[in-house]
Amino acid sequence: MTGTKERILDTTAELFRRYGYTGTGLKQIVANANAPFGSVYHFFPGGKAQLGEAVIRRSGEMYMELVLSVFEAAPDPVAGVRDIFTGAAAVLRETDYVDACPIATVALEVASANDVLRTATADVFESWIRAATARFATAGIGKKQARALAIVLIELLEGGFLLSRAARTTDALDAAGTAAATLIEAALPSRIRT
Amino acid sequence: MTGTKERILDTTAELFRRYGYTGTGLKQIVANANAPFGSVYHFFPGGKAQLGEAVIRRSGEMYMELVLSVFEAAPDPVAGVRDIFTGAAAVLRETDYVDACPIATVALEVASANDVLRTATADVFESWIRAATARFATAGIGKKQARALAIVLIELLEGGFLLSRAARTTDALDAAGTAAATLIEAALPSRIRT
Repeated sequence: MTGTKERILDTTAELFRRYGYTGTGLKQIVANANAPFGSVYHFFPGGKAQLGEAVIRRSGEMYMELVLSVFEAAPDPVAGVRDIFTGAAAVLRETDYVDACPIATVALEVASANDVLRTATADVFESWIRAATARFATAGIGKKQARALAIVLIELLEGGFLLSRAARTTDALDAAGTAAATLIEAALPSRIRT
Repeated sequence: MTGTKERILDTTAELFRRYGYTGTGLKQIVANANAPFGSVYHFFPGGKAQLGEAVIRRSGEMYMELVLSVFEAAPDPVAGVRDIFTGAAAVLRETDYVDACPIATVALEVASANDVLRTATADVFESWIRAATARFATAGIGKKQARALAIVLIELLEGGFLLSRAARTTDALDAAGTAAATLIEAALPSRIRT
């Protein structure tokens, strides 16, 4: 059985995806996590802000591991990038357009409102950029271009989630995936083809 | 002097950018708009939801006109796309990383929580996609590719805003602008260069 702390973290992450940071209340968290109200303050004495920071950092790490595993299961970087977008689109459709980036909604909500949480989202994005940069560099792309492509990959994924969730179709994620694959393919020294 | 209704709309749009939909209260709106409390219900009998929908549609249209004017002032589509990102980055820095897309935060907050507001954000994004598609088609790009590029342009802008606001640097918008210009340039039949 999952511990109370993990249930609180998982439940909060799910509520953040659906309602954002501001729209998620502690009462809702403990109710959905089937946890006593005091348990949030037991594990997170700083309350919602401390819990929020923990969820941002934990969700960011879990999502990065998921996306990297998709990338690394593919035969080459172009296929890996395509698979990331195809997989993201499938998950989005299967979850009724809820399960997208775990931190984007919160990142926009807190960007100009809470500097501790903003820094947590910035750290997560930077960890994603570094992980993708390292993969692209390993594939033979120069460090500077690899970082620019890593940033663009994440931007296309985030933009794709935004437009796809709004429209409730995954056309925008498909267009994003094609653009990302095109850019990676053009940057590869040996033009590896899928 | 601006009318009360316009002040309410402008103030709400500004608060949405900064705090999102959920984080913006009617009391804060009337206080910042210097308007009597009852005036919100006078102009928007449906309250915050109706006001929110009006703000999403109005801000979306105003932002589209602003971005199109930047694009159309440029000598060619590649320069136009570059100028959109350069201008967006300048505004972001000048406004302490507040003034980015007027509807993205709200769009993510409401995507799985309020279908009327979700539809309003979807309509705005679709109007942006159509406007950019028409400009790219006029430049000689085939209709289907023009639409895909229009979607990708908006995704890169939105992703650039997200990462730039989180990191409080405009590096991510710069990378997005370079990628957008590269993709447009490759799609133009005559390879117009800046």
